[in-house]
Amino acid sequence: MSATNKFNNINNSSKSLGEQMSDRIIQLIIENNWSIGDKLPNEYELADMLNVGRSTVREAIKALVSRNILEIRRGAGTFVSQKCGIVDDPLGLTFVKDKFKLALDLLEVRFMIEPGIAAIAAVEATEEEIQQMTILCNEIEALILKEEPYTEKDIEFHTAIAKSSKNLVMENLIPIINSSIAIFIDITSQELRKETIETHREVLNAITEHDSNGARDAMFLHLVYNRRNIKGVIKKRMND
Amino acid sequence: MSATNKFNNINNSSKSLGEQMSDRIIQLIIENNWSIGDKLPNEYELADMLNVGRSTVREAIKALVSRNILEIRRGAGTFVSQKCGIVDDPLGLTFVKDKFKLALDLLEVRFMIEPGIAAIAAVEATEEEIQQMTILCNEIEALILKEEPYTEKDIEFHTAIAKSSKNLVMENLIPIINSSIAIFIDITSQELRKETIETHREVLNAITEHDSNGARDAMFLHLVYNRRNIKGVIKKRMND
Repeated sequence: MSATNKFNNINNSSKSLGEQMSDRIIQLIIENNWSIGDKLPNEYELADMLNVGRSTVREAIKALVSRNILEIRRGAGTFVSQKCGIVDDPLGLTFVKDKFKLALDLLEVRFMIEPGIAAIAAVEATEEEIQQMTILCNEIEALILKEEPYTEKDIEFHTAIAKSSKNLVMENLIPIINSSIAIFIDITSQELRKETIETHREVLNAITEHDSNGARDAMFLHLVYNRRNIKGVIKKRMND
Repeated sequence: MSATNKFNNINNSSKSLGEQMSDRIIQLIIENNWSIGDKLPNEYELADMLNVGRSTVREAIKALVSRNILEIRRGAGTFVSQKCGIVDDPLGLTFVKDKFKLALDLLEVRFMIEPGIAAIAAVEATEEEIQQMTILCNEIEALILKEEPYTEKDIEFHTAIAKSSKNLVMENLIPIINSSIAIFIDITSQELRKETIETHREVLNAITEHDSNGARDAMFLHLVYNRRNIKGVIKKRMND
């Protein structure tokens, strides 16, 4: 049984024809080695390949679009999505009621994984990856000094570090966790800016020097400033 | 702007009417405090509430079903799904080609988070939660002794520990990571069984005694045995 099939079997035994066809299209993608941006056969061809009607194929494709596995470009066809099947809010956090606690819990997860990831990155990062991190670090500094929003670049910086660790899961997990924090709590405090510039720079320097413990410590410090700041923001809002 | 809205805005700016209606239904769920298992208004009522046609409502509902946010029970109506919007394979791992490396990378993530979670659980777990863990621990032992599959119960045990830590993210993250490992590598080695029984018991005892460091160490040991075993399985398969 393929990995995909097993994934679906964990949650589900009785599936509609459309859902079964969604699973079969995923298998087609894997078997044919179609990658991000590759175009799928058209509706007629897929109906032929899967031996079902075109309306079933259409239903299956729509379901895969909702799951960010496929994307439809009008007039061009159906493609394997850039989003690699990672949906909005994959951890199902939208429905958690206490957003302040959630922000702190997400940060707690960052404390558990990001120092370790930075330590691995210091060993594994290539020159090219370090260059990319340096560019991002500079861009963030420039944005902070201009007092412009830098959250998106900040997530890119942390994702670049995770990616350079070569752990296939971290590359997907870090952006999910970091964007979730950005969503649930809007951190615009002036105070954090200086510390962000300094500790980012420290993390980057340690990775550049392949100093594993230094990278771990600097990332830890970075998160400490972040937690203090988030706690301050929450305290203020609860008093408002 | 609501959290949901922001989630969607991170990835997307131009959305179809169906997608916009999906977002509005999510907002309705949040605003009305509808919980897991609650029934939604019918198609006519939703069309009225959202001021769109019934076919658009139907499309939006189908998309939310694909995302495991809603579920349709034939003849009964549309309900908020038990799966809380956590899709199959939320981290998009189906498309990673090297499944052996992926299994080890997933385990690396477990090393980063589970000992810390066990340490927090030793402080936070209630008597009731410890009772539940004890039942699961006993069930796993019984299955192992009967040489029956115990993966599902094993995931439940680790999820119960995560849940008792009261970190809202861990409760969702642990089962995702642990089931992914179970999917990508099938561990049936005889050798692991004794160590699983012993280290599970050690983790449980430490949590019961509210011994934080003990719980951390025992979980670490548990993962060490797991990693040795997975490496052995991979080595064997690569030689086959």
